[in-house]
Amino acid sequence: MSAAPIPFDIPFDPATLRYDDRGLIPAIAQDHATGEVLMLAWMNAEAVARTVEGGAVTYWSRSQNAFWVKGASSGHRQRLVELRVDCDRDCLLLLVEQTGPACHTNRRSCFFTAVQEGAEVEIMAPIS
Amino acid sequence: MSAAPIPFDIPFDPATLRYDDRGLIPAIAQDHATGEVLMLAWMNAEAVARTVEGGAVTYWSRSQNAFWVKGASSGHRQRLVELRVDCDRDCLLLLVEQTGPACHTNRRSCFFTAVQEGAEVEIMAPIS
Repeated sequence: MSAAPIPFDIPFDPATLRYDDRGLIPAIAQDHATGEVLMLAWMNAEAVARTVEGGAVTYWSRSQNAFWVKGASSGHRQRLVELRVDCDRDCLLLLVEQTGPACHTNRRSCFFTAVQEGAEVEIMAPIS
Repeated sequence: MSAAPIPFDIPFDPATLRYDDRGLIPAIAQDHATGEVLMLAWMNAEAVARTVEGGAVTYWSRSQNAFWVKGASSGHRQRLVELRVDCDRDCLLLLVEQTGPACHTNRRSCFFTAVQEGAEVEIMAPIS
């Protein structure tokens, strides 16, 4: 896959990103301070624009078919510190400040099981 | 979305993951030592199995429609240190040991531009 030329030092435009056939792009949320990868969710162009403009990370919920302001109901909000774009312009990395757990299971990260010696084990407990 | 119960402490089976309608699951590669997010690519069930069994990270190339042993041609290999699974079982986090640059542009990470004050700027140079 060849990507379009990378627009350096010009105003960022969400339309320059590459969305899939549903109009979505995957976004990885990483804790800006610790480097911990917290979750992956999806955005459409409008969600990208809202996130960059407002700072409250806003995804597109594929199950609800609606905008999803992270933490709007739980209080476990994500504030955008920096948005990064990959070489193919088809994936985003969000450096965020995460309030409380990122996962709906009340764990800090959604990635809470690991394959170790062929078995899948829990490596992170819910925040009590 | 509700996910299937998490199979703790039983042998890991790639068939328990949730693949999209193309039979693919996104996989985030993170440097196991520094925490740097290097790239996102895709795997099918067989790529997951090969990666876990052999330790050489193997993706499914959507453009080539073929298995893609990372670094097989460039030498910029990824060795799996640990595979993690998210709560919905529809995304993987690979902690890896990366030889050289992860990006085909010769940068350490594929995420080498950032939106800062509304403009997209380059934040990482190719490895010389």
